[in-house]
Amino acid sequence: MRFTFLGTADAGRVPLYGCECPACNAARTQVAKRRGPCSALLETDQTRILLDAGWPDLDERFPVGPDAILLTHFHMDHVAGLFHIRWGVGTAIPVFTPNDNKGCDDLYKHPGLLDFRTFPAPFESQTIGDIDVTPLPLNHSKPCYGYLITHSSGVKIAYLTDTIGLPNETCDFLIQQKLSLLVLDCTHPPQPSSAKLNHNDWLHAQDIIKRIPAERTFLTHISHGMDCWLRSNQAALSGVEVARDNQAIEFKP
Amino acid sequence: MRFTFLGTADAGRVPLYGCECPACNAARTQVAKRRGPCSALLETDQTRILLDAGWPDLDERFPVGPDAILLTHFHMDHVAGLFHIRWGVGTAIPVFTPNDNKGCDDLYKHPGLLDFRTFPAPFESQTIGDIDVTPLPLNHSKPCYGYLITHSSGVKIAYLTDTIGLPNETCDFLIQQKLSLLVLDCTHPPQPSSAKLNHNDWLHAQDIIKRIPAERTFLTHISHGMDCWLRSNQAALSGVEVARDNQAIEFKP
Ligand SMILES: [Mn+2]
Ligand SMILES: [Mn+2]
Ligand SMILES: [Mn+2]
Ligand SMILES: [Mn+2]
Ligand SMILES: [Zn+2]
Ligand SMILES: [Zn+2]
Repeated sequence: MRFTFLGTADAGRVPLYGCECPACNAARTQVAKRRGPCSALLETDQTRILLDAGWPDLDERFPVGPDAILLTHFHMDHVAGLFHIRWGVGTAIPVFTPNDNKGCDDLYKHPGLLDFRTFPAPFESQTIGDIDVTPLPLNHSKPCYGYLITHSSGVKIAYLTDTIGLPNETCDFLIQQKLSLLVLDCTHPPQPSSAKLNHNDWLHAQDIIKRIPAERTFLTHISHGMDCWLRSNQAALSGVEVARDNQAIEFKP
Repeated sequence: MRFTFLGTADAGRVPLYGCECPACNAARTQVAKRRGPCSALLETDQTRILLDAGWPDLDERFPVGPDAILLTHFHMDHVAGLFHIRWGVGTAIPVFTPNDNKGCDDLYKHPGLLDFRTFPAPFESQTIGDIDVTPLPLNHSKPCYGYLITHSSGVKIAYLTDTIGLPNETCDFLIQQKLSLLVLDCTHPPQPSSAKLNHNDWLHAQDIIKRIPAERTFLTHISHGMDCWLRSNQAALSGVEVARDNQAIEFKP
């Protein structure tokens, strides 16, 4: 089983358009430091699941469609790639989503290839191939799910973006799991406590990480500001890892 | 003065996702036959204007922003690239649009760098650098403008997409111009007269072309079906040209 970060940026990506901060300048000259739309791929011997669909080149990345797409929510940086592939031909692609009666722009009106599906309720899992997927409510400006992904080999992955803090029920649920991998929104460096946030800063992320045990923890949905801060605050992470685009994590059976 | 077709596809692009028609297969092996989001760039010694913003990599294409963006309308294949660059920093980019109080998704709510502007009325021109731009109503499922672009050198370009037929007032206005270049939506090959269309097929395009005199006429917003049809019907065009992505037309002063 393999989990790959396809993209690890916030909506502004890194480099941010027009920005000349050290993180953005570094990303312009070093491809490895670039960050694209926040998205991941889960692969087992039998099943391929795409987590979020913000990459605009899904046609080239998936000439054979994934078995399913899990959407965390309908913000553009997570769904932009659907607007093109929906017009395609071939097998319909199941797209699991939170309950959001607006969707994004005209995706519901013209779904084309996309077979939109919702979950019966939060915390009620669905089986996709040899993977179990459990939707977990998050705190965001649109209806938003994180996902617990469970494989028969025992691997358990929690993918939690976009969110500011965590709802108690989601946190309590995750504390009881023995996570192999925790992937968490950490868009911002530490912000003043008065800041109105729609995403975790490092302080909120740290609080969540301390409460939810996991063998490995990765931060994602990283802004250029977070990347700047990390240039002089790597030590603060103490074992927490910051994801990179195209970084793959292998789980041995 | 130079006019460049940045993209010449309909919303499905060529190749269309999953399609194995001859046009799509050819586009997969020959880069020159690919078609991306319908868009064009106008450049004079003083001024750069982007016509539509569907390309997702506007940050890389325009590290220095254009002087203005002209939007024909707010369908996703014409605006997708704005969702990323709006979060950038630097000088605001004027974005001229039809009167459309919905816009697309949350572009109006979070315009960021984008300075949305409308025209006082159809047929009333605005000056952008050394270019005059006149908005021309089109027939489409959203409020949609074509544009007459006039340069002091005498060059006149009409850019007319997306449209099915033309409103009489737009057609009458254009008949009186001596166009250097007519660029016209021709999404579909000939369709039955009963077909409900939101874009020109070749029959509608032909009708418009016969009425509006122009030194050169190019078809754009081409579907894979139109490309298939063209493989055996090139002769039908009799002098009308089919645009290609990255094709540039130079106008000598
Ligand atoms: Mn996001
Ligand atoms: Mn979001
Ligand atoms: Mn279009
Ligand atoms: Mn359109
Ligand atoms: Zn920056
Ligand atoms: Zn095709």
